[in-house]
Amino acid sequence: MRIDLSRAVLADNDALADATRQALTVAGVLCVGLLSSPGAGKTTLLEATADAWDDPSRLAVIVGDVATEADADRLRRKGIPSVQINTLHHGATCHLAAEPVAAALATLELGNTDILFVENVGNLVCPVGFRLGEHQRVVLISVAEGADKPTKYPKAVLETDLALITKVDLAPYVDVSYEDLERSVRQVRPQAAMLGLSTRTGEGMDAWLDWLRARRAEVTG
Amino acid sequence: MRIDLSRAVLADNDALADATRQALTVAGVLCVGLLSSPGAGKTTLLEATADAWDDPSRLAVIVGDVATEADADRLRRKGIPSVQINTLHHGATCHLAAEPVAAALATLELGNTDILFVENVGNLVCPVGFRLGEHQRVVLISVAEGADKPTKYPKAVLETDLALITKVDLAPYVDVSYEDLERSVRQVRPQAAMLGLSTRTGEGMDAWLDWLRARRAEVTG
Repeated sequence: MRIDLSRAVLADNDALADATRQALTVAGVLCVGLLSSPGAGKTTLLEATADAWDDPSRLAVIVGDVATEADADRLRRKGIPSVQINTLHHGATCHLAAEPVAAALATLELGNTDILFVENVGNLVCPVGFRLGEHQRVVLISVAEGADKPTKYPKAVLETDLALITKVDLAPYVDVSYEDLERSVRQVRPQAAMLGLSTRTGEGMDAWLDWLRARRAEVTG
Repeated sequence: MRIDLSRAVLADNDALADATRQALTVAGVLCVGLLSSPGAGKTTLLEATADAWDDPSRLAVIVGDVATEADADRLRRKGIPSVQINTLHHGATCHLAAEPVAAALATLELGNTDILFVENVGNLVCPVGFRLGEHQRVVLISVAEGADKPTKYPKAVLETDLALITKVDLAPYVDVSYEDLERSVRQVRPQAAMLGLSTRTGEGMDAWLDWLRARRAEVTG
């Protein structure tokens, strides 16, 4: 038995997340958090974003997984400076927290960085409650997961800034369309910002890149 | 701040899970736990299992979700007695625990039940650590999630009895095959029991039903 500091830790987490976000704002770096179920396409989206960005070395990623360095390796091959956090070594395995993210940040050279992405552990529940210092939080939901996920995991929609519907090229094979997911998202949050895309066909990538540029402009003023 | 009983609670959880399993064994009911990412197809698999079972009223389901009664409603429409647990009302939202499952069990008439399924919250991390009284635990992994999920969420493979690869009909559209997932599963656990299926085409359903019958025979002796 031990003393549980969970409420205090959460307060500390939010304070550290606030400090992280302020430091990134001062540095002119937009910080975008990505959360989703396992396999919704977070890393693949970042690979496609790197391909479309003027200079992928001006992006950076901190990526959380229970185990393996696989995602950071994929992103480095695309020219994005990347730091892997394995949550097996950080207490709670099911989500990132502000402290390891702040520690990872200290190892990145952010002088010439446009956007820092923080890719969370694949999990639609636990990561939602832990702010990491993001200016924007994006939830990815693949059409292959079915149309009901927004209503079944409502906080993932209510506590993020953009619902990004991924793998829309699979819609004909899974009988779930972007419009089905739009209805489900709007049932939880009528005014939710939404985009649909497929990294396979390129559909929707321009709107995603525009969204990123507009959010970055808000940070750099 | 409060006293954390998490270690004691976990011991209690396992003791209650053991008692639940023993009671089900005495009643001649096989208990099968299903865990997966959101949208891997747990409820759809149970719907297809109901369609193929001699008498779906001899199946029963306890289903956990953060929110909504949607899955239990779907299963009742297939003739399966079903109890929905919303984890929003049970402390930890990200997984089922033995206590609410035992409470739900008390509301089911199990005299004529062949198999009780316990469908967990969609989450590849947190549910793994909490036994619920299952004789068998099955992890579902959809080909649409990508081939790397077993290595990235190793406990989901190491601490379950069968890895069921779902939505194999999508393999050509996602460039991930059953064999790719087999390699990834065997990297974590060389001797893992595995099956592949598609509820859409029916491929693999017979092997799944055979597996269920064989496991049931182990319980009823």
